[in-house]
Amino acid sequence: MSGPVLALVGATGAVGTVMIDIINRRESVPWGEIRLVASARSAGKKITVRGDELTVVELTPEAFDGVDVAMFDVPDEVSAEWAPVAAARGAVAVDNSGAFRMDPEVPLVVPEVNADATATRPKGIIANPNCTTLSMMAALGALHREFGLRELVVASYQAASGGGQAAIDRLYGEVQALAGKQVGLRAGDVREVLEAAGLPVSDSPFPAPLALNVVPWAGSLKDDGWTSEELKVRNESRKILGIPDLKVSATCVRVPVVTTHSLAVHATFEREVTVGEAHEIFEAQPTIVLVDDPAEKRFPTPADVVGEDPTYVGRVRQALDFPNTLDFFVCGDNLRKGAALNTYEIAEELVGRL
Amino acid sequence: MSGPVLALVGATGAVGTVMIDIINRRESVPWGEIRLVASARSAGKKITVRGDELTVVELTPEAFDGVDVAMFDVPDEVSAEWAPVAAARGAVAVDNSGAFRMDPEVPLVVPEVNADATATRPKGIIANPNCTTLSMMAALGALHREFGLRELVVASYQAASGGGQAAIDRLYGEVQALAGKQVGLRAGDVREVLEAAGLPVSDSPFPAPLALNVVPWAGSLKDDGWTSEELKVRNESRKILGIPDLKVSATCVRVPVVTTHSLAVHATFEREVTVGEAHEIFEAQPTIVLVDDPAEKRFPTPADVVGEDPTYVGRVRQALDFPNTLDFFVCGDNLRKGAALNTYEIAEELVGRL
Repeated sequence: MSGPVLALVGATGAVGTVMIDIINRRESVPWGEIRLVASARSAGKKITVRGDELTVVELTPEAFDGVDVAMFDVPDEVSAEWAPVAAARGAVAVDNSGAFRMDPEVPLVVPEVNADATATRPKGIIANPNCTTLSMMAALGALHREFGLRELVVASYQAASGGGQAAIDRLYGEVQALAGKQVGLRAGDVREVLEAAGLPVSDSPFPAPLALNVVPWAGSLKDDGWTSEELKVRNESRKILGIPDLKVSATCVRVPVVTTHSLAVHATFEREVTVGEAHEIFEAQPTIVLVDDPAEKRFPTPADVVGEDPTYVGRVRQALDFPNTLDFFVCGDNLRKGAALNTYEIAEELVGRL
Repeated sequence: MSGPVLALVGATGAVGTVMIDIINRRESVPWGEIRLVASARSAGKKITVRGDELTVVELTPEAFDGVDVAMFDVPDEVSAEWAPVAAARGAVAVDNSGAFRMDPEVPLVVPEVNADATATRPKGIIANPNCTTLSMMAALGALHREFGLRELVVASYQAASGGGQAAIDRLYGEVQALAGKQVGLRAGDVREVLEAAGLPVSDSPFPAPLALNVVPWAGSLKDDGWTSEELKVRNESRKILGIPDLKVSATCVRVPVVTTHSLAVHATFEREVTVGEAHEIFEAQPTIVLVDDPAEKRFPTPADVVGEDPTYVGRVRQALDFPNTLDFFVCGDNLRKGAALNTYEIAEELVGRL
């Protein structure tokens, strides 16, 4: 087979598994070879990719020999160490961790918004945005091109799987423990039932019960009460959209949903935007599905969007009291477009630019 | 016993039941008599109130004879018909329905914000606000007094019980049907499991699955894609706070929580507000509990607030890019302060003003 060589680092992890599913479902791929890379513990494992049984190889400098594009779906510290190694061996590293996103020498890319940014990559590294930011980028990018985005107020409804498999298992465990119980009626009764079921909150990846609850916390504490997740929404939106002075306030809230992040977006533009104009723009964007027929109670919900590649947009309203402002609701699968899919789309984008 | 006569119309309903609990837990009450009123179907039922077994009387004009304050916890159309009857018989009607909230001759009251509005009641009727609006009024009222509120962008996380007992039962039913299943991973799988369990979404009070999902819809469709609930947040906030030109955008979203509404609030004031000043104001307000220590992962969540009377406030942050603006998160029990408690507090407020 001819064509560039693609490496997938973290092939056996949660996002890596979704990545292989995405590669398997692609009608065609441009790669001459696909190489699966993981830690020593997973090396030797066999995984079928597009009909070929591949053996996972260990993450070593030599694993990148001959590789053109190396996608990294691994923790920050692994990316921080190994993406430069891949780049030094001549690969372009496409990194899905937070290690390089705000590095001024690393482009942060959403292909339908800023594909051209992939051309300038002084470190040989391209970063994939945080999943929460990504969920609204296709919609905001399309509107920004026409109307000039100025301000953004966002509240998130983030799925458990943003916290990995342990977080998913925790949510399922809590749902099972609470099923059949009349809880959520008295302060602390959810905690009590979880404790009695051997699921004290102290053992949870979340700082409070998540089932039958919402938790206004995601990420770690940064300055002045802001979370890392809220600052990512602000700083990554500015970088991807190329608006260094974009005004952003985000409140990030975890909800008892397995997968698919949702966002309530209040976006102010330089020029007036009608609902009809916004609908036309969303309908013209191949990576967006518009579901906005409130008379028929049609709008996006996570349960109807999970597993899908596009971003779903609905509840588009022109703000009644704020000029040039739209309110809308978006849902995007945080493991697909929010992680693996966008990384893979960057890799595809690179094929013509190697 | 001396003292004014209080009637409770809708004594056997969901909010009426919470109301009786509130009256029973009060240290003392100013009422010479408490009269329980309900439809003919419930008349004759016996309910113990503060140690006395009371017999529910049927809703007739005569039921209001001698009544000083009549609290209505009934559907809009029942209030629309009967609150004027009570007023005509000399009672002050305190109505928890939506029938009179935006009537310019009916004050809309949150006692800690605008108690004085109870003095002017040309129709003999006082309205209790919608539960979503109410959840943030204590906090916004206190900040407004000091800093002058100008703009409000709100996203809600609304509990099922806002839709009554059928909505609560539906959520419990969905949780039970989904427990032990690996759902929420593929578009439509939650719907399929519910259908297989005899719980098709077509039978639900919600327009989509609620368990393991969020639903960006509450209320009915109004002009230009806005919901009745979103317009209530706007219009009732303006009326209660006495700011006719307050700029408001709200997105109302139902979440799989049994009881207690939460709101992510982005509030802009005439003057600068620091987090420290906001904390001081919240701590000085007896109907607010401040839970805001993110280093210790302390912030309000619905599961820890349900059943409590105060509004809980946390995650207070000064906006990084918007002048004079705070972002914060509030939780309030939608059946207590959001409904029965505020109605009862209005009734108590009236004792000195009859």
